[in-house]
Amino acid sequence: MRLLSGVRPTGKPHIGNYVGALRNWKLLQDEGHECFFFVADWHALTTAYDDTKQLQDHTVEVMRAFLACGLDPEKSVLFVQSGVKEHAELALLFSMIVPLPWLERVPTYKEMKQQLSEKDLSNAGFLLYPVLQAADILIYLAEGVPVGEDQVYHVELTREIARRFNYLYGPTFPEPQAVLSVVPKLPGTDGRKMSKSYGNIIPLECSAQELEKSILPMVTDPARKRRSDPGDPNKCPVWDYHKAFGISEEESQWVFDGCTTAKIGCIDCKKLLLKNMLRELEPIWQRYSRINARFAMEVIAEGNRRAKRTAEETMALVRSRMNLLF
Amino acid sequence: MRLLSGVRPTGKPHIGNYVGALRNWKLLQDEGHECFFFVADWHALTTAYDDTKQLQDHTVEVMRAFLACGLDPEKSVLFVQSGVKEHAELALLFSMIVPLPWLERVPTYKEMKQQLSEKDLSNAGFLLYPVLQAADILIYLAEGVPVGEDQVYHVELTREIARRFNYLYGPTFPEPQAVLSVVPKLPGTDGRKMSKSYGNIIPLECSAQELEKSILPMVTDPARKRRSDPGDPNKCPVWDYHKAFGISEEESQWVFDGCTTAKIGCIDCKKLLLKNMLRELEPIWQRYSRINARFAMEVIAEGNRRAKRTAEETMALVRSRMNLLF
Repeated sequence: MRLLSGVRPTGKPHIGNYVGALRNWKLLQDEGHECFFFVADWHALTTAYDDTKQLQDHTVEVMRAFLACGLDPEKSVLFVQSGVKEHAELALLFSMIVPLPWLERVPTYKEMKQQLSEKDLSNAGFLLYPVLQAADILIYLAEGVPVGEDQVYHVELTREIARRFNYLYGPTFPEPQAVLSVVPKLPGTDGRKMSKSYGNIIPLECSAQELEKSILPMVTDPARKRRSDPGDPNKCPVWDYHKAFGISEEESQWVFDGCTTAKIGCIDCKKLLLKNMLRELEPIWQRYSRINARFAMEVIAEGNRRAKRTAEETMALVRSRMNLLF
Repeated sequence: MRLLSGVRPTGKPHIGNYVGALRNWKLLQDEGHECFFFVADWHALTTAYDDTKQLQDHTVEVMRAFLACGLDPEKSVLFVQSGVKEHAELALLFSMIVPLPWLERVPTYKEMKQQLSEKDLSNAGFLLYPVLQAADILIYLAEGVPVGEDQVYHVELTREIARRFNYLYGPTFPEPQAVLSVVPKLPGTDGRKMSKSYGNIIPLECSAQELEKSILPMVTDPARKRRSDPGDPNKCPVWDYHKAFGISEEESQWVFDGCTTAKIGCIDCKKLLLKNMLRELEPIWQRYSRINARFAMEVIAEGNRRAKRTAEETMALVRSRMNLLF
């Protein structure tokens, strides 16, 4: 199956990106799917148009994260959106056939406007986000789109756009499906949504010491005020982390038992978590240390070339279907 | 002054296009301005996305009209919008910084939706029209935009977009001005707005016989039912044509005198019009006969190359200002 997915370079990649996307992408790649993974720098502008100072750095950092997490440029096409201009052309052409009400009813549209109410998100690009996303997906004739639950509607909209194009101009695009995997949601270190603006993220690239400094002071079940108070893992963000980082059945029992009876303290529990996180993150850090920005740029250049080849083929078809001269 | 203007290829070029735009463009070109004139085929999609069968033909026909009207590929850059993909990229980037209310308040937006109420114009591209137009203009750093009165607001919006970009990312774009010329409005042969859908247009490329067949049955002052009824040129579409095709003072007096006293009939008046139209149109028809589609395509190829060179320079600046990797 041909798959496509992307990450917006809105900051340095953090372990939320890893657990929510990159780790899963690597699995899909290793299962033998034909994968296109990209850094969605144009998409970052939909919300961060007013502060682009670090956009280039973050774009390269996301590619470094791709590689550190085991995405392999020999197996997958790893590229940067702004390097394949055809995305913009197809988005423009799609905008001609997409009714505004389709966009206005996107659930994430109003939600994000509320969540980011301190920002001015009345910009046209923010409304048009799903049109650009449909272009990203359909330009590679992708059949599957690995996404989180919150993006399922966008993939549905992509199918509607594909259907409408096919109806108006003849069969051209497949109707891609969302590829949902069980992806644990990682809260931030304070228990709230992980977000750069809350200052509660853990960067994916860090040292064991830095990881410890993030994990040890993490918020836990608020009912457990003292060491002697029993706690409930289901109300504790640390437990979400345990589930995300491969806790064994035995360890799991130890945590549940120890926490609910106050036999273990939160620090004991966090030390177990650190052990499990280190097991998974250390190989990534090792790869990170071998991937500098220069190497990431080389991977991007080659990935862009490959992506462009496919995108250009699709556009030739699209232009002829729509009867455009070029 | 660097000027830019475009025509949408929504049908075969007609004398309304000539009088309203092309004739004036030729004057501006011959005054020595640095001119970019283009066929706005992507813009045609904003209203005609559901019927593109003839889009390629019409695009080439508009270029033939450019050349027949005396636009000179040695002096001006004559190109086709879809051949310069950078327009799409800049439009996408502009969409990130343009507030939706700027677009919703465009007077022509609601007007055209009403006028073309039989069409579904709820498509996003129709709302985004002025953003693409701003990209068309600013990508060439044009200082002047020859337009009709109805487009003045669009140029104002282009200035606002330029200002907003310059404010967010540093000085990049000039603030272009509308270049208004006294352009007579030509009604259709039935006195209504000239429009393909009313079947009341006169094609620019036709024979003297065909012109006669269009002009002689033209609607005149409705008060002049009989030859013996006096008429009022100011209520007569034929008089609009006279003003557009260089009537002399003497002829003008003859028409006014004859019409208001019923000394001349409408056919007499139309024969004078035909004489004046032929004087102006015959050289155009002669050039037309020497310009086939193949030659137009050669001009387009070279014009696109020149336009692309300038557009690419601007985009390099834009990308660096916005801190995009590509």
